[in-house]
Amino acid sequence: MNLGYPGRQKQLEKLVEKLGLPKNASIKWELLHLALTHASASATANYEQLEFIGDAVVRLAASQLLFEIYPDCSVGEFAAIRSILVSDRILCKIADSYGFDRYLIVASSAASDKTGAETRMADALEAVLAALYLSAGTLELIRPWLDPHFRQLAAEIRRDPARQNYKAALQELTQGKHKVLPKYHVLETGTTQGGEDRFTAEVRVHGNLLARGTGRSIKAAEQAAAREAFIKLNDA
Amino acid sequence: MNLGYPGRQKQLEKLVEKLGLPKNASIKWELLHLALTHASASATANYEQLEFIGDAVVRLAASQLLFEIYPDCSVGEFAAIRSILVSDRILCKIADSYGFDRYLIVASSAASDKTGAETRMADALEAVLAALYLSAGTLELIRPWLDPHFRQLAAEIRRDPARQNYKAALQELTQGKHKVLPKYHVLETGTTQGGEDRFTAEVRVHGNLLARGTGRSIKAAEQAAAREAFIKLNDA
Repeated sequence: MNLGYPGRQKQLEKLVEKLGLPKNASIKWELLHLALTHASASATANYEQLEFIGDAVVRLAASQLLFEIYPDCSVGEFAAIRSILVSDRILCKIADSYGFDRYLIVASSAASDKTGAETRMADALEAVLAALYLSAGTLELIRPWLDPHFRQLAAEIRRDPARQNYKAALQELTQGKHKVLPKYHVLETGTTQGGEDRFTAEVRVHGNLLARGTGRSIKAAEQAAAREAFIKLNDA
Repeated sequence: MNLGYPGRQKQLEKLVEKLGLPKNASIKWELLHLALTHASASATANYEQLEFIGDAVVRLAASQLLFEIYPDCSVGEFAAIRSILVSDRILCKIADSYGFDRYLIVASSAASDKTGAETRMADALEAVLAALYLSAGTLELIRPWLDPHFRQLAAEIRRDPARQNYKAALQELTQGKHKVLPKYHVLETGTTQGGEDRFTAEVRVHGNLLARGTGRSIKAAEQAAAREAFIKLNDA
């Protein structure tokens, strides 16, 4: 197949091999090529539409796996874990583990934008998921390699709740329930001396105080407040 | 199969027939039964987990259809249309068209809660979508009957932009791009006499004014401001 770039077919086959997919897998190569083409390289033929589909594909893959391996989990915990699994941070890590940056066609001007790199890798991974889903009509080209990543991460999150990103989880919850994002307000309430927590965060929804939390940094105080609020709302 | 309710199997078969699915379709009946059981009827065996999966299934079905029928649409327009298609309002309408309320097992106390009825129907539809997806491993038991609804709605939305819910579309856009919801501020700037617009709405993201809009009602002014902001952000 001619994808308009010399050697592109071979390159994409290498990635598919890295993902552990069978050599004879029926793949729509032109979609995979598109999934790994950034908008800076082509304004019209790039990964944007596929990323839009892939966003739904990755949520489905994560949901189905959680349902299978944790049948007794509450939906609140599902939502909390899923919001972490499908975050840019995690998707970028997974993309990095396969060296996606070597396969993504991107204009050099955009490639030098280091702050956008995480989003770019996460978006490309989502687009690749869409290309593979559209190739098979099922998740069969996805789950064999994505599940192990999600399994391990989900187990880590459940084992050590401190690793949980409660701000993301709370956001998912309040958006779903109240169509609104939680708001944080942080005050410096302690000193750096004495070992006590320096910051106190309050989190509100629709102006109502949900919870307070303290921490040594602003971020830690916000996470502590989010954790309290998340548990409170989840039990309600 | 014994689903614990006399006549339940027959009832579910009737719904499947109404959806136009083949009589010999391989369906996981226990999942379909669960999908049509409200939490008020069983605290442990209800549709909540399936609804969680169904939320991803319906997004995928909508995304894939839009990608197929409007290959030249911008991702911004996709997002705007999808946000309407997967809204509680639309999903409830679709559920109603098949008389889902006759199949949902719900405690009478909850059934009398009319304000929750729309969400309940939308949730049950999502859960049914999950049960059908998990039965087939593909969207083959879903798209034949869901696509025609989505096709018609998407065409209406595109034909008559005034039907578009720009507030929902803008929210989808700013959440995706900026992880934040737009904020509206409405002032009464006109009178009821004279025919001019009575309200002016401002919409901001991160405190930055995106757009202003006017209307005869608060809602209309907000929609007008959202429309301006949506077009502005989408072109950016």
